[in-house]
Amino acid sequence: MRKVLILLSSLLLLAPALRAADHPNLLLTRRCVSEIRSVRGSLPLFDFSVNELLKEADAALERPLDVPVPRDGGGGPSHEQHKQNYYDMYHLGVAWQVSGEKRYAQKAREILLAYARLYPTLGYHPVVLSPVPGRLFWQTLNESVWLVHTAMAYDCLYDFLSSSDRKTLEKNLFRPMAAFIMDGTADNHANRETFNKMHNHGTWAVSAVGMIGLVMGDDELVRQALYGSEPGGGFLRQMDELFSPDGYFTEGAYYQRYALWPFVLFAQCLDHARPGLRVFERRDGILCKAVDTLLQLAYGGEFFHYNDALEKGYSAQELMYAVDIIYNVRPQEKQLLSIARDYQGRVLVSDAGFAVARDIAAGQAEPYVYRTRLLRDGRDGRDGALAVLRSREGSALTFKATSHGLSHGHYDKLTVAWYDGGHEVVSDYGAARFLNIEAKYKGHYTPENKSYAMTTVAHNTVVVDGRSHYDGKIKVSSQHAPRLVSFEGGDPAFQYVCAVDSTAAPGVRLQRWTALAEVPFLDRPLILDLFRTSSDSVHDYDLPLHYNGHMISLSLPYKRALDHMEALGTRNGYQHLWVEAQASGAEGSTAYTWLCGSRMYSYTACTSPQTEVLLLRTGAGDPNFNLRSEPALMLRERGRKTHLFASCLETHGRYDLRTEQAADMVRSCEGLEIVEDGPQRICVRYRFKGGHSVLLTAEVQNGKMNVQYQ
Amino acid sequence: MRKVLILLSSLLLLAPALRAADHPNLLLTRRCVSEIRSVRGSLPLFDFSVNELLKEADAALERPLDVPVPRDGGGGPSHEQHKQNYYDMYHLGVAWQVSGEKRYAQKAREILLAYARLYPTLGYHPVVLSPVPGRLFWQTLNESVWLVHTAMAYDCLYDFLSSSDRKTLEKNLFRPMAAFIMDGTADNHANRETFNKMHNHGTWAVSAVGMIGLVMGDDELVRQALYGSEPGGGFLRQMDELFSPDGYFTEGAYYQRYALWPFVLFAQCLDHARPGLRVFERRDGILCKAVDTLLQLAYGGEFFHYNDALEKGYSAQELMYAVDIIYNVRPQEKQLLSIARDYQGRVLVSDAGFAVARDIAAGQAEPYVYRTRLLRDGRDGRDGALAVLRSREGSALTFKATSHGLSHGHYDKLTVAWYDGGHEVVSDYGAARFLNIEAKYKGHYTPENKSYAMTTVAHNTVVVDGRSHYDGKIKVSSQHAPRLVSFEGGDPAFQYVCAVDSTAAPGVRLQRWTALAEVPFLDRPLILDLFRTSSDSVHDYDLPLHYNGHMISLSLPYKRALDHMEALGTRNGYQHLWVEAQASGAEGSTAYTWLCGSRMYSYTACTSPQTEVLLLRTGAGDPNFNLRSEPALMLRERGRKTHLFASCLETHGRYDLRTEQAADMVRSCEGLEIVEDGPQRICVRYRFKGGHSVLLTAEVQNGKMNVQYQ
Repeated sequence: MRKVLILLSSLLLLAPALRAADHPNLLLTRRCVSEIRSVRGSLPLFDFSVNELLKEADAALERPLDVPVPRDGGGGPSHEQHKQNYYDMYHLGVAWQVSGEKRYAQKAREILLAYARLYPTLGYHPVVLSPVPGRLFWQTLNESVWLVHTAMAYDCLYDFLSSSDRKTLEKNLFRPMAAFIMDGTADNHANRETFNKMHNHGTWAVSAVGMIGLVMGDDELVRQALYGSEPGGGFLRQMDELFSPDGYFTEGAYYQRYALWPFVLFAQCLDHARPGLRVFERRDGILCKAVDTLLQLAYGGEFFHYNDALEKGYSAQELMYAVDIIYNVRPQEKQLLSIARDYQGRVLVSDAGFAVARDIAAGQAEPYVYRTRLLRDGRDGRDGALAVLRSREGSALTFKATSHGLSHGHYDKLTVAWYDGGHEVVSDYGAARFLNIEAKYKGHYTPENKSYAMTTVAHNTVVVDGRSHYDGKIKVSSQHAPRLVSFEGGDPAFQYVCAVDSTAAPGVRLQRWTALAEVPFLDRPLILDLFRTSSDSVHDYDLPLHYNGHMISLSLPYKRALDHMEALGTRNGYQHLWVEAQASGAEGSTAYTWLCGSRMYSYTACTSPQTEVLLLRTGAGDPNFNLRSEPALMLRERGRKTHLFASCLETHGRYDLRTEQAADMVRSCEGLEIVEDGPQRICVRYRFKGGHSVLLTAEVQNGKMNVQYQ
Repeated sequence: MRKVLILLSSLLLLAPALRAADHPNLLLTRRCVSEIRSVRGSLPLFDFSVNELLKEADAALERPLDVPVPRDGGGGPSHEQHKQNYYDMYHLGVAWQVSGEKRYAQKAREILLAYARLYPTLGYHPVVLSPVPGRLFWQTLNESVWLVHTAMAYDCLYDFLSSSDRKTLEKNLFRPMAAFIMDGTADNHANRETFNKMHNHGTWAVSAVGMIGLVMGDDELVRQALYGSEPGGGFLRQMDELFSPDGYFTEGAYYQRYALWPFVLFAQCLDHARPGLRVFERRDGILCKAVDTLLQLAYGGEFFHYNDALEKGYSAQELMYAVDIIYNVRPQEKQLLSIARDYQGRVLVSDAGFAVARDIAAGQAEPYVYRTRLLRDGRDGRDGALAVLRSREGSALTFKATSHGLSHGHYDKLTVAWYDGGHEVVSDYGAARFLNIEAKYKGHYTPENKSYAMTTVAHNTVVVDGRSHYDGKIKVSSQHAPRLVSFEGGDPAFQYVCAVDSTAAPGVRLQRWTALAEVPFLDRPLILDLFRTSSDSVHDYDLPLHYNGHMISLSLPYKRALDHMEALGTRNGYQHLWVEAQASGAEGSTAYTWLCGSRMYSYTACTSPQTEVLLLRTGAGDPNFNLRSEPALMLRERGRKTHLFASCLETHGRYDLRTEQAADMVRSCEGLEIVEDGPQRICVRYRFKGGHSVLLTAEVQNGKMNVQYQ
């Protein structure tokens, strides 16, 4: 009965396809083309975007036809040429639509037909590095991206091409490629698995197949894209599974950006070609939520760096797709307009981009506002969470208590980071990778990504006995998530979050409370941090603090490596850290100050003479210079059952480069004492200049925090 | 007879002062005040600047009166408070003039009178660090800066104050301070020496004394400021001596910026109050030349980093003075307007700033253009030169063959640097200093400035036998300058410079030819570099290349420091360099590639298996973390009499972050051979991809270079 219903609803939804489809009708519709032609010259941002696209199409006209036999990995010439070709075909196709000039269509046709000649001759790609190898590219993922773009080009050219051209293209290129992406080959089913997988590579695959299916009017391809070629697969189920109810994608911001691209793009195509699906309304508007969440996972327009992140921000082309398409779905979200205007400076040459440009021209843009957010992880929102606490000026304190995050996750339970003053101040290393640089491990993640970037010591969280969380085993890590204990984000004067984890380090309970407080006697928000480790047995606890900037002072004497320097350890990431200096902690507390940009940051932590204080720098154990050279501070407590790391991080100092005036350059915190460290409650007093103090209490059971100022 | 003439001319020039002077009449004139009041609201940039100034004056109104007893060194609270006070008085004074609101004048009067009470109680400043100690500040220099600002404030308030106030101020504050700056105290003549010295500190001193003399109508003070309190001193002679005929200041861009401030400011005051002096015409308009030269000593609005430079650029307030004042003298220089508009965003609230704002509003700004320049050093232009070769897109190759440059000079004969793609790619360390950060050696130059930043190994030039040029002795270095052999900057297709030095390393002749060439088969200009060392005896020659960015590849196997790392040496700066990796050069040539920003840089040099190739990083031998962590490459040739370092530096690679498209990521140069290395001529062939080559010849005697492409 259920099957019959699904079949029935599929038939209903696919019904419009039974008539001959209009072209173009994917990203750009025929209706929009007429509108574009009629208003050319009256919308500055849209005109600019059309002109940029025409420039790119003109450049494509100039380039000699070059459809090479696949040879190189990522970043190599043949790889880049195939990328260039799909951009060229896309630009030429859209240029043909908006200008009506045949030379664009003719050039695109040439390239398409060259692919139709090449493709049938190809076996697997010669570079064997991916478990999911492609034909045109070293991995099928890039092949799906190629097809996504080429489907849009084909849609634009459909009516221009002769039926014989179309037959050639579909028979020799599009159908075999769709079949390959969907099913792989007789001796390799990796593609079939990916196609039906709840994974962002799967989203690219189904989008590619679905989009070419829409253009060709092949309902069966579209059906398989939507519902999978095997039970449990398909685009719609990916929408249900790959985001949490808060629109959070488990791999983190960097991959959420990439994952969202095919989601919003294919959804846009479906919305044009299969409006009955009402794809943007599915699951309470999950794609809109996911874009909103992604935009919030950023500081100053750059995405947070946790997990395998590289530098990326709102200016990336996929964000232009996301912002334009979602704005067209929800035109009440006027803040999206300022992202398009301020970070992107261009729009899609499509229905969605047209709407954005039109409403910016109408003066409707509103400033984009960053908000404090709790983003639950996991399909049902039960696999921990990422908390982002924002100051009024938009600085971000991130607290990561999520699940592992698939293959791009790091062993970083309860890590924090602080983005302030235009910089990533307390930092997350992100990925050890030089994207598109062949000389660096062919542009892939380098071995140091696993040996350092993913390890616990590379993060701002406690390492137990010098071992990464879950001993760095993804299979184990993927089965667990920390438990969010409390979150309070309603009052900018005092925001906090608390989470606990009992699985990352066997036999040790890790609980962290982190608060962002507006303190009446301080100019800038203060971060208050309590990290308690508890166990029945004795352990060594290391707490690193990775930062950007230059060391200014440590409040006690230290021994600096002067003429020789040693690595911190031999495994679990420790082998990658040089020991630049070491000291014994002071009785009471130890303070460390660094300079980042034009501000100072002072970290004051509870220590004893048994505490080891280390100043570190990445770069050891790195035979091929794959690591960046970055500093860290580490507190080590050895041979403890239970330990409370209590600290605060002050942001202070103003330096005016123009007039060379400095103020507030010395830290205000004079020390802290643990007043109570009991099974029910923790209480810490922080002392500040001028006789001020902050009394912080934290409940163990419910994670609640309270602060009093004197 | 000569004396009589001087006396006569002095009397004539000073004649206007014999009548009661108008006030204000220094930076801002009474005539301009009426104009300002009449056009308020019609010149956006000027209105903005007035409003900013009024905001600052309003903030000064809010601040409680605080004229503390001097206590701290640079960056400390009392130091910063006295700086704040002079800015406050200046802002209040000008605010009173433009608004006519008495509260501004009243507040300024309060502060002034507080100083009149404090100053007579002061002996020398308690921080004893400067050979020229001050009273309000740890060095007299800051006291002169204080008086320069306060003179402008007093000028604005002159008519507001009662004659009894004026009497108090002049008797207790201005005259004693002027006397102190001019003469020092009975037991310390350092100030008298500085006042009469041909040095930028002297310029601050004479400007302070001269400006307060102008306000008080004290012709004797003005006379001593102009002609010195001892023979051979004074402002006019400083104009003759402190700049080369090309307007180059021997200490370099960073200090030229600072030195020019009192020059243009006092000159502006003189131009208003003593127009008969025609100060801006002196020495063929040397101050206008000096400002033009300073602006050219920059890349992307940031000054070059040679000598003791910190980060500084066009946005600094002293540049606003320079640009506005010179524009008002030479209103045909329309490019100055775009600097005011694009880098400064505000103008002086003065006659000069008014002219700038008015002409920007009239649409007269022209884009600022960087030019290839040869800037001769020395009063007569005979002490070597700094050459700046510019590419068409404004990238800068600097070649330094100047004299030592007084106390801020480095031991860096024939060093080069390359600014490209928005970055300082081949870098000059500049200064080891954390300005205004008390925790870092009280904000002064740290000891590592001498032990590293000034040494030869910290620069991109040859170190002979591991010793700095002139063995790091400033007295010796100051007696010599390299000889400029050739310079050709007329054709952007091929520009070059050659200089020779026979004094920096005893018994060794250093000759360097550097060219910037547009090569028909390369996208970006190519740097061609020949550095020949010749001697009758055997030496070790080290050639470092300091760069910004990340190591991408070295063309041969190397041994990387993995678990321990050693310093390169024990003295002359070598103790500050970690050896990250080492290798033996290849037979023929060795190539090194790094990434900086979104471009790649490949250095290909002639080597042999006897060449040692070292990858280095600063930070060793640095007990207080005063050095930045920066990478370098070094080529070592040991036991040679004569050696030719021949190399080229390619700029290549394009990476589009938006679309993740990469191109041209692999170097084009495949190697080089020295075809001829004779007493008359050097000839080198560089081989490039695609069978291309560059044949470079260089003449030894006349330094001429020639290039042929195949």
